[in-house]
Amino acid sequence: MFNYYIPTRILFGAGKLNELGNVKLPGKKALIVISNGRSIRGNGYLKRVEDLLRRNSVESVVFDKIMPNPIKEHVMEGAKIAKDEGCDFIVGLGGGSSIDSAKSIAVMVKNPGDYWDYINGGTGGGKPVTNGALPIVAITTTAGTGTEVDPWTVITHNEEKIGFGCDETFPLLAIVDPELMLTVPPHLTAYQGFDAFFHAVEGYIANTAYQISDIYALESIRLITKSLPTAVKDGKNINARSDMALANTLSGMVESTSFCTSEHSLEHAMSAYHPALPHGAGLIMLSIAYHSFFMEKIPERYKTLAKAMGKTGDDPKQFIDALKEMQQAVGVAGLKMSDYGITEDELPKIADNAITTMGFLFQMDRYQLSRDEVISILKNAFA
Amino acid sequence: MFNYYIPTRILFGAGKLNELGNVKLPGKKALIVISNGRSIRGNGYLKRVEDLLRRNSVESVVFDKIMPNPIKEHVMEGAKIAKDEGCDFIVGLGGGSSIDSAKSIAVMVKNPGDYWDYINGGTGGGKPVTNGALPIVAITTTAGTGTEVDPWTVITHNEEKIGFGCDETFPLLAIVDPELMLTVPPHLTAYQGFDAFFHAVEGYIANTAYQISDIYALESIRLITKSLPTAVKDGKNINARSDMALANTLSGMVESTSFCTSEHSLEHAMSAYHPALPHGAGLIMLSIAYHSFFMEKIPERYKTLAKAMGKTGDDPKQFIDALKEMQQAVGVAGLKMSDYGITEDELPKIADNAITTMGFLFQMDRYQLSRDEVISILKNAFA
Repeated sequence: MFNYYIPTRILFGAGKLNELGNVKLPGKKALIVISNGRSIRGNGYLKRVEDLLRRNSVESVVFDKIMPNPIKEHVMEGAKIAKDEGCDFIVGLGGGSSIDSAKSIAVMVKNPGDYWDYINGGTGGGKPVTNGALPIVAITTTAGTGTEVDPWTVITHNEEKIGFGCDETFPLLAIVDPELMLTVPPHLTAYQGFDAFFHAVEGYIANTAYQISDIYALESIRLITKSLPTAVKDGKNINARSDMALANTLSGMVESTSFCTSEHSLEHAMSAYHPALPHGAGLIMLSIAYHSFFMEKIPERYKTLAKAMGKTGDDPKQFIDALKEMQQAVGVAGLKMSDYGITEDELPKIADNAITTMGFLFQMDRYQLSRDEVISILKNAFA
Repeated sequence: MFNYYIPTRILFGAGKLNELGNVKLPGKKALIVISNGRSIRGNGYLKRVEDLLRRNSVESVVFDKIMPNPIKEHVMEGAKIAKDEGCDFIVGLGGGSSIDSAKSIAVMVKNPGDYWDYINGGTGGGKPVTNGALPIVAITTTAGTGTEVDPWTVITHNEEKIGFGCDETFPLLAIVDPELMLTVPPHLTAYQGFDAFFHAVEGYIANTAYQISDIYALESIRLITKSLPTAVKDGKNINARSDMALANTLSGMVESTSFCTSEHSLEHAMSAYHPALPHGAGLIMLSIAYHSFFMEKIPERYKTLAKAMGKTGDDPKQFIDALKEMQQAVGVAGLKMSDYGITEDELPKIADNAITTMGFLFQMDRYQLSRDEVISILKNAFA
């Protein structure tokens, strides 16, 4: 029993960005949303996108303030610019933060009030989005969030980092061109790859998983196990980048069919208090403790996960082995919470933030964690 | 490198038809398209759909002339009724013939001229569909064509049976409720199950296959191998029916991502001349000869197909073994072309019809068949 809905058109493959110049687009003027970093301009991606849009008879305006953990103020500011400029659609160009911001901006162009009025969880107002959203075009330059093919957007406001989405926040069009990923540095390739990996793993262990989400998840996990180490070590390897791009898109399709679990709630709480912490790094720090706990509760699912990672035995613990091996292979096995200023004293506060702001993901777990168990997982991860 | 687009919303599972009463629908008046047989009324499905639409504030009109191999005249007649009655959307309720007709009617409500003006192949005019189509709701009562999640519709006109589709012929909504399939008699369950099976197999061996179509195809084949024999022998078994319903939907997703191969062209030609021949039965008659030929050309793909059917060796011939075993298990191993009045003399004419009217599927083959090879495959299938 399931409802399935992934309406996004996906253009996938090396060189596919060029099709932006002739594909059917939903209007004549676009707001291009990019990060506040240098890479999107520096690598020439912004100019290429502007040129391709122009060739497709589309004017564009750039909004370039998005931070790695994007904030509500920039959503509101971007929406005001899109309205003032009369934009017909929003282009998110970059990693998850830019595409997520594009989605949230697209909602706020069409709906009144404040973005947090529409958020479920924490201090969010929980109002329904009645007017839909401007059409969204997602051009991803990373293999991490899968946001280009899911409806979700994660924005932070006052130490609440909360996911949100509706039918209208599915991108109309996603361009996944691994050539745009060749310049991602090794450590970010690793963090982003693990983000995609945990989307697939969590979607597989969630109680919302079903046959279609499972085949996306297992194929994504297989591809990441095969190609993440190469993508990290040899970033110019287009085959490894293509595998990771596809794994990323598949993990986004997992997000659209199943759900993340409480692991993501815990990470959101960590980076809500420590915005410099990359999301994928936070997940890596949590992962051994978190999955060792759940492996005991639902061993059958972990046996299949271990097989998707190439293990041939029938022991769920092999998943933990494979996870450790992959973390070693890409050089992230030594990541520590304290590297980003997280202290052990904070862990109860992080647990409470996770439960309060992203409590709905705990409902996707196949085992219901108590607050004490959440703190215990955090402590094991901290150690 | 691929383009992916399956915008249909799928409601899947036992009892899901009831959601037609409250799901968002694209208008206030529907044309319900059903077959000219007795089952849709006799099983109470039509009344349920009418009642559920009414509960959802939607009026409806019924068009009940669709034949097992649907014809162009009924497309034109249905479109005229939909226009005269001011229908906002079309509901296809039944098997592939009703849903396909609903799609073609939806096109002809919005576009001028004759349906055959828009057909590519044979005597079709090849005109582009410029005005799109009315929204389509597909409610499938069989596990066969997968048409509820693909854009394709197959209509016959003057001994030309030709597939057609565009973005707008994807159903807006597909309801796949295996409870509606419990009354399908054993021989039709077998034919329809093999239709889904060959969609998956052909999509897997086509040169258009890629990673996502492959995972749909292999999972569909796995489910059919597991549950078709039970669905045929014990039609009330809801688990087997659910597996077949999901296999069918997955095979439709294969149709939306990869393509059929020339096997389908050959069958279309057979049933264009012999409209009483069920499509699935025609495919079964062709299959051993057809796949024995291609197995020699592309053994690697057939090795994986054999594994998806549960074979453990590394010999592509095991796929033919498994295919024969499944045909035995569901009682269709003895089907003969002559049972439906096909004579050996006709085979060259059938080959020419296939090449002329559905030549584009030959382009999806990984090996390009000559006319002589086509005739040879038909002769081997006839023997």
